[in-house]
Amino acid sequence: MYKPCLQILLAASMIALAISNLSAQMRDDEALRGARRNLLPVPASVIWKNGRLVFTRAFSVAVKGQTDERLRAYIFRVMRRLEGRTVLELSHELSNDAANVSLVVETQSSGNAIPKLGDDESYNLEVSENQAKLSAPTTVGAMRGLETFLQLLDGDKDTFYFPAVSISDRPRFAWRGLMIDSGRHYQPIEVLKRNLDAMAAVKLNVLHWHLTEDQGLRVESKKLPELHQMGSDGLFYTQDEIREVINYAAARGIRVMPEFDMPGHATSWLVSHPEIASGPGPYKIERQPGIFDPTMDPTNEKTYKLLGVFFKEMASVFPDAYMHIGGDENEGKQWNANPAIQTFMKDRGIKNNHELQTYFNMRVLKFLQKDGKIMMGWDEIFQPTLPKDVVIHSWRGQKALEDAARQGFQGVLSNGYYIDLAYPASDHYVVDPLRADTTLTADEQKRVLGGEATMWGEWVSPETIDSRIWPRTAAIAERLWSPREINDVYDMYRRLDSIARQLEELGLTHRKNQAVLLRRLAAGRDISALQTLVSVIEPVKEYKRYQVRPQTMLSPLTGLIDAAQPDAPGGLAFNRSVDEMLAGINPTENAAKLRSMINEWRTFETGLKDIMERSPALAEATQLATDFKNLNQIALEALDSLAQRSPQSGAWRDARMATLAQIAKPKAGLEFATVAGVRKLINAASTNSN
Amino acid sequence: MYKPCLQILLAASMIALAISNLSAQMRDDEALRGARRNLLPVPASVIWKNGRLVFTRAFSVAVKGQTDERLRAYIFRVMRRLEGRTVLELSHELSNDAANVSLVVETQSSGNAIPKLGDDESYNLEVSENQAKLSAPTTVGAMRGLETFLQLLDGDKDTFYFPAVSISDRPRFAWRGLMIDSGRHYQPIEVLKRNLDAMAAVKLNVLHWHLTEDQGLRVESKKLPELHQMGSDGLFYTQDEIREVINYAAARGIRVMPEFDMPGHATSWLVSHPEIASGPGPYKIERQPGIFDPTMDPTNEKTYKLLGVFFKEMASVFPDAYMHIGGDENEGKQWNANPAIQTFMKDRGIKNNHELQTYFNMRVLKFLQKDGKIMMGWDEIFQPTLPKDVVIHSWRGQKALEDAARQGFQGVLSNGYYIDLAYPASDHYVVDPLRADTTLTADEQKRVLGGEATMWGEWVSPETIDSRIWPRTAAIAERLWSPREINDVYDMYRRLDSIARQLEELGLTHRKNQAVLLRRLAAGRDISALQTLVSVIEPVKEYKRYQVRPQTMLSPLTGLIDAAQPDAPGGLAFNRSVDEMLAGINPTENAAKLRSMINEWRTFETGLKDIMERSPALAEATQLATDFKNLNQIALEALDSLAQRSPQSGAWRDARMATLAQIAKPKAGLEFATVAGVRKLINAASTNSN
Repeated sequence: MYKPCLQILLAASMIALAISNLSAQMRDDEALRGARRNLLPVPASVIWKNGRLVFTRAFSVAVKGQTDERLRAYIFRVMRRLEGRTVLELSHELSNDAANVSLVVETQSSGNAIPKLGDDESYNLEVSENQAKLSAPTTVGAMRGLETFLQLLDGDKDTFYFPAVSISDRPRFAWRGLMIDSGRHYQPIEVLKRNLDAMAAVKLNVLHWHLTEDQGLRVESKKLPELHQMGSDGLFYTQDEIREVINYAAARGIRVMPEFDMPGHATSWLVSHPEIASGPGPYKIERQPGIFDPTMDPTNEKTYKLLGVFFKEMASVFPDAYMHIGGDENEGKQWNANPAIQTFMKDRGIKNNHELQTYFNMRVLKFLQKDGKIMMGWDEIFQPTLPKDVVIHSWRGQKALEDAARQGFQGVLSNGYYIDLAYPASDHYVVDPLRADTTLTADEQKRVLGGEATMWGEWVSPETIDSRIWPRTAAIAERLWSPREINDVYDMYRRLDSIARQLEELGLTHRKNQAVLLRRLAAGRDISALQTLVSVIEPVKEYKRYQVRPQTMLSPLTGLIDAAQPDAPGGLAFNRSVDEMLAGINPTENAAKLRSMINEWRTFETGLKDIMERSPALAEATQLATDFKNLNQIALEALDSLAQRSPQSGAWRDARMATLAQIAKPKAGLEFATVAGVRKLINAASTNSN
Repeated sequence: MYKPCLQILLAASMIALAISNLSAQMRDDEALRGARRNLLPVPASVIWKNGRLVFTRAFSVAVKGQTDERLRAYIFRVMRRLEGRTVLELSHELSNDAANVSLVVETQSSGNAIPKLGDDESYNLEVSENQAKLSAPTTVGAMRGLETFLQLLDGDKDTFYFPAVSISDRPRFAWRGLMIDSGRHYQPIEVLKRNLDAMAAVKLNVLHWHLTEDQGLRVESKKLPELHQMGSDGLFYTQDEIREVINYAAARGIRVMPEFDMPGHATSWLVSHPEIASGPGPYKIERQPGIFDPTMDPTNEKTYKLLGVFFKEMASVFPDAYMHIGGDENEGKQWNANPAIQTFMKDRGIKNNHELQTYFNMRVLKFLQKDGKIMMGWDEIFQPTLPKDVVIHSWRGQKALEDAARQGFQGVLSNGYYIDLAYPASDHYVVDPLRADTTLTADEQKRVLGGEATMWGEWVSPETIDSRIWPRTAAIAERLWSPREINDVYDMYRRLDSIARQLEELGLTHRKNQAVLLRRLAAGRDISALQTLVSVIEPVKEYKRYQVRPQTMLSPLTGLIDAAQPDAPGGLAFNRSVDEMLAGINPTENAAKLRSMINEWRTFETGLKDIMERSPALAEATQLATDFKNLNQIALEALDSLAQRSPQSGAWRDARMATLAQIAKPKAGLEFATVAGVRKLINAASTNSN
């Protein structure tokens, strides 16, 4: 899935516009902002009331209606999290006295023990001064409501409390997923578990588990053990571990859909089974990132014999109704080069590689159907003669989904949700699976099932993956759950901060591992200068990391680029203040804020240069220390001019812009998030500004 | 094991003296300090040479002599850690060209695949400009040498390198352990695994796994499943998990010795088997900390029937030759109150409870002997008629070990190594299993096998346990490995900083989780004031935490007391500078350092008060904000007087001392580490100072 997401690039400029427009309308709408508090995703309906339910160590919970072990366990986990936040020990029993407990949870049915697409996830939550009442048709709905309840916890100097509120909530889309690529880098099941906890916290409900890639086949096959034995470097999931993940997910109302990518992205299969390749072997596990030629041979009956055995086994391991067969990025080079395949096509009237892949897909489809599974695949698998329950997974965009929907097919969007590309959360946030101007009928719109954030695994280790997923994926989760009208970017960022903190209580490492990486790079020196730097620099966007230096799937992911994160907080704050100041919103206050940020940064300039020059692991990034200094200097000059209302000359502007252009070039795969703001300051501070 | 460690209290005052004496002799001995670099434990013999082995991405390793999978896997893990530090991708293959590789590892024998007491852990390491050569009789020795090699990695502005050196090393004691108490708080196997990695990094070789307690029986029994089913709240280790831990440990040259504590500390057994108790049931899993009455009935044949089955099963699960039966803190209350037991004793001429426990131990011993195991137990089990291979584990102290050694018994010291008591590393560091003035003969001295740090589990969660073990346990590891003469406390602390950082690369959470805890407490507010506070406050020492507030084994461990850590770094630095200044060592420099620390702290006074007053989870600790301010104020007054050479009055001193006495009282289980230094400053700054 490596085609550039043009839509994201478009979105980036649109959002800049959106921010400047929105800010004027929205930012003073404190009523609205306050009303949302820290809820993320924002519920479908929230009515705030007067009063509060005070939280003490006497907090108690009762269940009414049906009860099941999954619900009880969820409630106890919620209580442990409340304890963690409040440092108050609560009861470890449920109460039987529903009339007098702090929280009553009432469900009608336990629903599907293994979640299914379309499960009812709705709930109602009423918090009054005396009691909170959560009611939901099913256990999964109660889980969603419990997460909302947790997000409501607030405190003032006297006490913790839940504000009185009436919430009625249900998701806008039924398919709200996160794809984790375990193929390129193996991720231990602890990583999957803690990410499942995080998914539940923001009401995502599908873990799309990308299990095979050129670089690794990560699933244990007992029928064909040579597959994982030769295709994984020993880094695979046992079937026991897979069941553990599935159960862990089910306990949180999350489906687990496996992906076995074929006929391309299949090198790791061919290490043990070169006879099903379309070109001559032998094959080795791929170490490079990219798109590779090795492809299964769709004309060879041995291919189907093996896949039949494989899918039958996997159908029994994975209970979900859907099975993803990938199907992406087969460039067909091995097919073109293979005379036997060419003859096969000619004999059967198969006109091109797309038709040949369709032939392959139809054969695979039969296996899935025999095992009671529904096929899902990337855009490339689409063609109108497929059965109508096949789900199209689109990296191409909403238009592809609309086209499919018109022909009766269901689809899931991932274009715009490629979190591996290091774009800001705001870019993903504005991408809606259904475009505002869609011409789909209401029925056709229902075929757009939702979306999935995709964590492609080229450049993530167990140490860094959380920081590439969170908190940005929470913004996508809100897009998929909340009403379309919830779209205040600044408010989303405010709430993202809050959710980022709450995810830490689930063991997520997105924040804490940054300091670990910096301490390792600093090798015993003080890291405050590096912490300042990473608050304003970000990893290069899109696919530029490939160009940084020769890197393979075996390279260490412990560099400054791995410590830096998308949405650098200093960059966000700086650029926002610039935008507001230049738009005339609290200009004096914002000018002072900017000056204060820069002056704070400047105190680290010397220390930064020093540590860069002493640390061989930072040698490739030393230019950043100079750039940092120059960037601060330029920003201050511009602020001075603006303060004195004495515009700088065009020559000044040109010189500064030239320096800025040098600074804007990534070094060691890193770029300054503040460049955009400084560019605006230069223009604003000089004559003939545009 | 809750008797106050008097020896530690003694040690605390001794070390204060030692520091002031040592500092004059040692601290300017830069040759010695430099020579030790960051090695911890310091090897038996180190000769530094000129030159360096430059480290590049061409770094390569070959093995000579025997080779085994355990050694190869260890080498690859070392290479991954070198990659992590240097951000350079290394080969993932071993080289066959021993003459030209960067590191040659040569061993004669793979040794015991499951480590045994007395395994040869010696090694020689020669680093020259061309190559490093590590040679060891066995694989385990090579592991120890590889950790030393990793600690040698250094860097300057141009490159990473290993300094040329000739090291010949072997441990002083054969038994170097860490006890982890999984009974009171269950610790997931990830916790055990990462602590095994940390143990290997500092050359510890025994994980003493305390598996049963009043508060939990954590081991799966297939023969008697009711034991763990009813005695663990579902928090137990499956036998598969236990094997996983044992294999993980063996791969790092570490033994795993289980402890099943009896006849006391046994409430969790009695939940399912009240019939073997010495008093009437029923029993529930204990939730409180402390010493409890429920005790197995040594006069009941059912007790032995059950234990016979249990030990036979456990003997097959745990391969280590030693099995620890606890035996501590049986106060015999149930025995005294039980007429049948009293009659039994009378009939058999058993004179007291100690003799009755000996009777019990001898019965248990028979089971162990039948299963080929050697018994170990706390001091209480000792009596001269035991077989001579029984090992005495002493919480009482070196004298108890010496007495046992004279009678032919082997012993292991834990008195002085109670890391749960929150004492500084320096206190543990000065405790030697063999007293300098010991009168034991050379042969008797050999019976003192070594020591064990004990991580009792009342107040540790998976989130905080690492910070209670590390880095302080590394100081104990050095005491047990290095020559007795290695005893420079300041140099130990310097190297502890370095090892603390290196442990992070193994996934240890001792540093990174402090910020997580503070962020949760701050609930979204800036944590810098809290970070400043925890740099100077420490959890109360010894057993004072019990008095903080009613707390059980189910209480959340997420308070400020859990975020604070022993050896608060600001406290260490402050007190050291005070000691040096008052001892006339660089007085001007140290006065300036002190002033700079205090002035830095003062910038957080307002923020600290603010966050304390707004956060209900910090309410119990608000007084600390006022104390912090007053402490800083007093220290500055004293420094001013000293600078101006104008001593304060006795009245001033008395008033300040009175304030200090109030400040010195723990609040919320926390105390200021800087109080000791400020007290000295008050005395020095006033007339009639003592």
